Amino acid sequence: MIREITAHELDPESFIGEKVEDIRRTVGEGWAINALSGGVDSSTVTMLGHRALGERLRTVFVENGLMRAGEAEQVTGFFRALGVTVEVVDARAEFFAALKGITDPEAKREAITQTFYREVFGRLVRESGAKHLLQGTILTDVDETVAGIKRQHNVFEQLGIDPQAAFGYRILEPLIQLRKDGVRKLGQALGLPGELFQRIPFPGPALAARVIGEATPERIETVRQATQVVERMLSGYGTFQYLAILHEDRVTGMRDGRRDFGRQIEVRCWDSVDARTATPTRVPFEILEQLAQEIVGAVPGIVSVTYNIASKPPSTIEAV
Amino acid sequence: MIREITAHELDPESFIGEKVEDIRRTVGEGWAINALSGGVDSSTVTMLGHRALGERLRTVFVENGLMRAGEAEQVTGFFRALGVTVEVVDARAEFFAALKGITDPEAKREAITQTFYREVFGRLVRESGAKHLLQGTILTDVDETVAGIKRQHNVFEQLGIDPQAAFGYRILEPLIQLRKDGVRKLGQALGLPGELFQRIPFPGPALAARVIGEATPERIETVRQATQVVERMLSGYGTFQYLAILHEDRVTGMRDGRRDFGRQIEVRCWDSVDARTATPTRVPFEILEQLAQEIVGAVPGIVSVTYNIASKPPSTIEAV
Repeated sequence: MIREITAHELDPESFIGEKVEDIRRTVGEGWAINALSGGVDSSTVTMLGHRALGERLRTVFVENGLMRAGEAEQVTGFFRALGVTVEVVDARAEFFAALKGITDPEAKREAITQTFYREVFGRLVRESGAKHLLQGTILTDVDETVAGIKRQHNVFEQLGIDPQAAFGYRILEPLIQLRKDGVRKLGQALGLPGELFQRIPFPGPALAARVIGEATPERIETVRQATQVVERMLSGYGTFQYLAILHEDRVTGMRDGRRDFGRQIEVRCWDSVDARTATPTRVPFEILEQLAQEIVGAVPGIVSVTYNIASKPPSTIEAV
Repeated sequence: MIREITAHELDPESFIGEKVEDIRRTVGEGWAINALSGGVDSSTVTMLGHRALGERLRTVFVENGLMRAGEAEQVTGFFRALGVTVEVVDARAEFFAALKGITDPEAKREAITQTFYREVFGRLVRESGAKHLLQGTILTDVDETVAGIKRQHNVFEQLGIDPQAAFGYRILEPLIQLRKDGVRKLGQALGLPGELFQRIPFPGPALAARVIGEATPERIETVRQATQVVERMLSGYGTFQYLAILHEDRVTGMRDGRRDFGRQIEVRCWDSVDARTATPTRVPFEILEQLAQEIVGAVPGIVSVTYNIASKPPSTIEAV
């Protein structure tokens, strides 16, 4: 049982001091490595790790082809400004090869997990000589994995898998007692810029979790373009999360007066404190209509756009 | 080229007089038959036909298993009150047998068309001895068929098929110069009760057009239940059309703290004058949230509900 530290009770400075000590004690004279996705959790753990280890923490950004538009450049730029060097590793071909033909959500997650740990990151870790892996797992990930709602890709220990035996390295999870709001408070204290520590959550399987059905390069590109419109138009509302989902179902549309059998994008925008429960944000209809118009205008193959109106539960935040 | 008569220029009394004459002249001493679906178009053409032919028009309601809850009882009750006897024919088994395994929207329409014309209604017509079939085709049906957007099931002549040769009877289409608003005006003049002539449009393939993928008895029952909630909650807004669509895509949900991989209902509610263009109705968010809550609470297997925010074009009013 992990003891939760709420955002309210979190004292960032003493928490940082304690975790920096833990990390230093565990890593000793060795090296550690961590993967930065650009999300709040991995950004915060990167800063915490650099506070503890300095140059002895090697931070990599794995370009898996499933990221949002411009994400690698943006994230490495933010960290460069903070004095942290992030190495970008291009592994797009490996991820799309692993995802080929897979439509089941669990199988997609599993393919991404296996490619990430066993192939790409596992290889980097082995080559680097680092024996310690720093990871931004938070309490909500653990809850959802234990409840069987979603298999998060970063909670091996919770699933009874020994990462030392399975992958040859040890995982440190300094954020595991926190939820999202606590991580934001901590990230702020660690000096992350507002744009980063206030970033909306982004799922581990990235845009592969935003397509229903197979995650091909073309389908990922479609949802990437829709995501760009959604993030641009909904970023100003102070909501918890907003996302675009590419559906597999085909719906009837019309273009130039002719039938155009196309696809649908579903937009979700959530009000939530900690992701355990969530309600759809009451985005003004003018904005929703403009959003739909931009998506059908800008994203090839899309003829229909919907907005989620169900709450969590019984919905979940992501669809896949 | 069919000459359009707009609702504005329509003079119901002289139109009725002219069409009653046409129908009497064409049918002569014989019998005519028509199928009543309960929609505005077929209800109006039923009244027009009875005005012209009285008891020499036989009106049947084909129970195809794809109708909304209580539809047969409601429709026959309305007409009984108007002095028109409607015969209900149970053909559910024939329709579901024809739809088995079919997922393509065009193939579904075709299966329903063929079952309706060649099997059920064709048999009724042949057994009845009637040589004339009265049908409520309107101009929008013709437009959409010609444009290739949707193959309407009731416009054989427009598709270059001779119904006399193909099916052994002749089709009369007295409403073919009108659009929906004109038909409503005409229905009112023919004495149809408000509940009927103001009914929202309902597609020819009925609830089979409201499921993406195979139209099994179970899936039709699911969308029937969702439709009942949607019609009850959105009937008061004076909108053009509102509908529920059962998607085939599976989405993640949670019930009792556990993962529940389920289905999604999409709700569409349209503002439109004549169905050629349409925009989503700005239904208050409290209503949309309540709607979603009732659907996930009442309809088995549904974990997510969306609301359409795209306009026609490029969307169409129905999804299938």
